[in-house]
Amino acid sequence: MAVNRGEFIQALREREAKLVELINRDQYRRSFNPEELREAVYSYLNRPAKRLRPGILLFSCGAVGGDEQRALSAAAAVEVYHTWTLVHDDIIDNDSKRRGFPTLHEQFRGNALNEGYSEGEAADYGRNMAILAGDLQHAWSMQLIWESINSGVSSAVVLDLLARLTNLTKGLLEGEALDVLFSKRKIDDLKEMEILKMLELKTGILYEFAGIVGASIGLDRTIDENNLIQAIGSFARKCGVAFQLQDDILGITGDEKRLGKPIGSDIREGKRTVIVLHAFQQADDKDRDYLLKWLGNPAVSGEKIEKIKQMLIEYNGVEYAKKMADQIVNEAIEELAPIPESQYKNLLLAWADYVADRQV
Amino acid sequence: MAVNRGEFIQALREREAKLVELINRDQYRRSFNPEELREAVYSYLNRPAKRLRPGILLFSCGAVGGDEQRALSAAAAVEVYHTWTLVHDDIIDNDSKRRGFPTLHEQFRGNALNEGYSEGEAADYGRNMAILAGDLQHAWSMQLIWESINSGVSSAVVLDLLARLTNLTKGLLEGEALDVLFSKRKIDDLKEMEILKMLELKTGILYEFAGIVGASIGLDRTIDENNLIQAIGSFARKCGVAFQLQDDILGITGDEKRLGKPIGSDIREGKRTVIVLHAFQQADDKDRDYLLKWLGNPAVSGEKIEKIKQMLIEYNGVEYAKKMADQIVNEAIEELAPIPESQYKNLLLAWADYVADRQV
Repeated sequence: MAVNRGEFIQALREREAKLVELINRDQYRRSFNPEELREAVYSYLNRPAKRLRPGILLFSCGAVGGDEQRALSAAAAVEVYHTWTLVHDDIIDNDSKRRGFPTLHEQFRGNALNEGYSEGEAADYGRNMAILAGDLQHAWSMQLIWESINSGVSSAVVLDLLARLTNLTKGLLEGEALDVLFSKRKIDDLKEMEILKMLELKTGILYEFAGIVGASIGLDRTIDENNLIQAIGSFARKCGVAFQLQDDILGITGDEKRLGKPIGSDIREGKRTVIVLHAFQQADDKDRDYLLKWLGNPAVSGEKIEKIKQMLIEYNGVEYAKKMADQIVNEAIEELAPIPESQYKNLLLAWADYVADRQV
Repeated sequence: MAVNRGEFIQALREREAKLVELINRDQYRRSFNPEELREAVYSYLNRPAKRLRPGILLFSCGAVGGDEQRALSAAAAVEVYHTWTLVHDDIIDNDSKRRGFPTLHEQFRGNALNEGYSEGEAADYGRNMAILAGDLQHAWSMQLIWESINSGVSSAVVLDLLARLTNLTKGLLEGEALDVLFSKRKIDDLKEMEILKMLELKTGILYEFAGIVGASIGLDRTIDENNLIQAIGSFARKCGVAFQLQDDILGITGDEKRLGKPIGSDIREGKRTVIVLHAFQQADDKDRDYLLKWLGNPAVSGEKIEKIKQMLIEYNGVEYAKKMADQIVNEAIEELAPIPESQYKNLLLAWADYVADRQV
């Protein structure tokens, strides 16, 4: 029986409760000291969030016939892993908001100002706590994968997943670095393939990892030993890329309150997206000059941001990205063909549907 | 036959050559992309350095009768691990020099300025590349421990060492965070025990890890299975703490060129050391006020730094720290009692001697 959006969200919420309980256990909380750093480690983790990556991991475990409970520690691992990349990414992007609250470096900068630090000291303190908290979460995510052993997952599988975790980091940070470097290149110097590669590295491969981990634990087999694992991994990677394309669309057309970040920030930062590239290629000379001048210009006004938004829509950048996302989701769904029918498979399909038509 | 200082240094140099060859292998170099990030990952690693941690790891492997060659990947792991903590620590401390060259964030800030970035953009770029490079080295160090499997180390030992790596990070970053927090507390609010705990966390436990990894691999046993492993670990931890005490002494009395960092920077930063605390406790009211006013004051002049140096010496801060270091080294040497005599044990003892009387 197909799973509708409400049921999909409900299924995520049920997993979230277990996940939040696990990561807040005393054995973990007490391992982060001093108290300021513990607060920093838990800040994003205890904010409201969709918990898609751990959800996909658990559904993937179930979809191959595995017991979700055995994958819970690994599910926490991908959430914690995702969080450290957010914490460091927010420093890198100088972002001020995350999940509707101040980014971690901003939160601790604020704490320091309240304690009477000077502006410069407070900014350093905020940045420093965020660097350290991200580093700790990185190490903790490894621990949580490791602890799958305690739920009966074999050493061979755990070792395989730990090796994948390292490769994931190399790919993901390559994506981060490309993002930093692309933002300094002129938009017309970039190729669509480069942007898509960056999306795959920044977002796709972490979802792929979540799918592989869930299916590997579900089967207690490494990826080479059962072809369902790679199938679910590819499905998840493709949905992840489509998810990111939609993210870029929502960055232009979305609702500020629901997204929890200011609309226009992508334009102000000059984010290199498929939308921007396509619109730029379609634009007339005058509008190209306008885009070149104002995309990524910190001095861009609210009025100009609105004008750029209209250009990105009118030159079909948004529509183009939407079509691309839909096509990728369709390819993703095909990957699931070898997976036997089950309610878990329906949850994965509901995710694909959610990605293709996401509002937040 | 006892090993003299020259022979000890020579033994380190021989290991360094193998280490540098290993970390620069194509299989690793090619895994770091884009090129800018690869350059960042290798920057500190290919600078001249003492390579004490990997050296101690390899000597510990030999001292329990193991084959050093099997521990080479793990030795590279501790060097890479140490490096990521330096890269992030240098951002945190706003340091400008490391191993005689610009710190990583400064190096890439300089690159960006040369390419015409604005001051603000260049500083962000330098910081961002350093954050990402440290994150990559962190992941890579895990990979290198993992790859000990390829030299025949058992899965059980590798899994044990990977779990220790996570705990190491939690302890080490607790030390980092305490350092950040202590620097904001008044010197007379701190206790000597707190400073010593910070030294143990920031420096001691990584040396302990090196000793444990080397001995575990040498015996292909986990720490619970053979008591020599903990003995070497404790030896290495204690020498590490003494090493750091000496570092603080050299930060006051050392030679700028040989250390590769500006003398007086510890005073300018208000670094909380046993030296400073002891001198402060011994000082008269006038000198206390002077120390409170100028330690950690960015406006402190070269003349005032010189005056503070003299105070730290005259109030016996330096001598006190030196005595403490000597005592800790003696305790360390006692830990080695159960280790059978060998040239490897002599190398470990030569290290203890080197720590007790270090010049650089």
